[in-house]
Amino acid sequence: MGHFVGTLENRVKLQNDYETFIIEADLHSLTTLSKTPNLVPEYTRQVVLDNISAGLDPSKVTFFIESTVPEIYELAAFFSMYVSHNRALRNPTIKDEITMKGLGDQFSLGFVNYPIYQAADILCVKGELVPVGVDQRAHLEQTREIARDLNSLAGKEIFPIPEALVGRVGRLPGTDGEAKMSKSLGNVIYLSDNVGAVTERVKKMFTDPTRLHPNDPGHVEGNPVFIYHRAFNKNQAEVDELEALYKQGKVGDVVVKEKLASALNEFLEPIRARRAQYEAKGKKYLDEVIFEGTKKARSLAGETLETVKEAIGMGYFNGMVR
Amino acid sequence: MGHFVGTLENRVKLQNDYETFIIEADLHSLTTLSKTPNLVPEYTRQVVLDNISAGLDPSKVTFFIESTVPEIYELAAFFSMYVSHNRALRNPTIKDEITMKGLGDQFSLGFVNYPIYQAADILCVKGELVPVGVDQRAHLEQTREIARDLNSLAGKEIFPIPEALVGRVGRLPGTDGEAKMSKSLGNVIYLSDNVGAVTERVKKMFTDPTRLHPNDPGHVEGNPVFIYHRAFNKNQAEVDELEALYKQGKVGDVVVKEKLASALNEFLEPIRARRAQYEAKGKKYLDEVIFEGTKKARSLAGETLETVKEAIGMGYFNGMVR
Repeated sequence: MGHFVGTLENRVKLQNDYETFIIEADLHSLTTLSKTPNLVPEYTRQVVLDNISAGLDPSKVTFFIESTVPEIYELAAFFSMYVSHNRALRNPTIKDEITMKGLGDQFSLGFVNYPIYQAADILCVKGELVPVGVDQRAHLEQTREIARDLNSLAGKEIFPIPEALVGRVGRLPGTDGEAKMSKSLGNVIYLSDNVGAVTERVKKMFTDPTRLHPNDPGHVEGNPVFIYHRAFNKNQAEVDELEALYKQGKVGDVVVKEKLASALNEFLEPIRARRAQYEAKGKKYLDEVIFEGTKKARSLAGETLETVKEAIGMGYFNGMVR
Repeated sequence: MGHFVGTLENRVKLQNDYETFIIEADLHSLTTLSKTPNLVPEYTRQVVLDNISAGLDPSKVTFFIESTVPEIYELAAFFSMYVSHNRALRNPTIKDEITMKGLGDQFSLGFVNYPIYQAADILCVKGELVPVGVDQRAHLEQTREIARDLNSLAGKEIFPIPEALVGRVGRLPGTDGEAKMSKSLGNVIYLSDNVGAVTERVKKMFTDPTRLHPNDPGHVEGNPVFIYHRAFNKNQAEVDELEALYKQGKVGDVVVKEKLASALNEFLEPIRARRAQYEAKGKKYLDEVIFEGTKKARSLAGETLETVKEAIGMGYFNGMVR
């Protein structure tokens, strides 16, 4: 659900006004799945299904898989000749992820390359507007730098300078109030959770740790239950009222949580319905969506790569070798 | 000429017994040519011409250009998920090159990736035997590690573990006795130098710095003139004799150098003849050689990439997207 308010929601909104590309950056999964790469394709399909369930219309949007488009990696290799090693290591998202995943100094070179791959993900289709979570903004800054540097090298605009579109909720905390949601911490509510699962997860949510009795005045700032209410409850008047009562010690956690569970389930209902609808079409349908999208993206990425090479004078045999 | 005794000579020998692939790793040129990428294609052609002049037969050997084979970079991206950032930085060749080129901490991320690209260069055609200069042996060690790790991940042999074949002269010093030859230091003799140029360069060579008069006893160890005599003079009996006389102070630098210039020019004669012969065929012929080789290599690299993905369970749409 954090992913929804961070970026998915914006993707859904933009699909009607922009030609929309959704990349599944599957190679990056190997940061945590390096020993079991065979799990990656199924995870990737689930992410696509999540996107579709969230409201992205496969007849409007191009879904594609990074690791089926070699041209992206060559673009990235090119870019990496124009990004200093120091600059790559200074990326705050890279630093954060090292801390969060407890990687210590045991991270791969590919992990350091990741912001560069991401630049290629975006620029291979000449992306102009990129819905990102706050924690991805640093990556986009890197992408913008690369686009500017390559344009300057080429002496003309070969890339747009992509803009970030940050979601309306900066960073949704976990159900335990932790800044980062993570599957391994079990503090996540999934778009695919059913009614019972959501109710259970909400019951276990952290609230105001300073409040000992239901009629103590409570705090709503930083209180995960109220943050989720604000983010997902369609009835914001109800949230105003609950907040007021909570501050006065006139409503207990149990009631606030019951109302949150209802609100979340109402919010998730259309998402669940779309998931069921597309699941019924079967894995083959999903693969077709991904396959067609990937073919289209690969063709565009090939053109982009050739444009770059031509522009900087390294276009030997452009378009002829394949 | 250092390149000749380091690897070219072995390439020429091996071409009759092995299917031989010669890659031009042009993207790496951007380490020094990042501001003028448009110079890269002509340099690359000259390197191919050098190889052919040295005796590589374009009817036997496959020449190909790295940056026209995106599959190499995807292979490298894959590999980089399995190489730790620390391991990449520990590469002694990377460290040496940073010192030699005076890069300080101003080197690109692509520069750090280079040994990984090199692994992909070799493994994309399933290379078994790699003629290398001593200073490239560390890169090959990295390649061997990657091949072993990927085989272990796949649970079967998808790559051979390539062997290094180091040239007969470990590292030819520059004409000034410096360990490294470099164009910018001007201490290089080129395979393309004509008779006059070679004679001039030999005249300026450093000899035994401790020897003040022609009849002082001289040192031949570490003396560039004698190192070049040993490496290139076809009449090794003459070298034995000159060494003996030099140690006794019975032959002067001038004579030793005259004989070296003759020896080098004799050595270079067939190389010059082949260069003239292929230059006469024109740039179009050379481009055809490179084009055909690149097409062949790209097809092989594509198969290799698909083999890897299939073997580790990430083979979505293998061979179908293009």
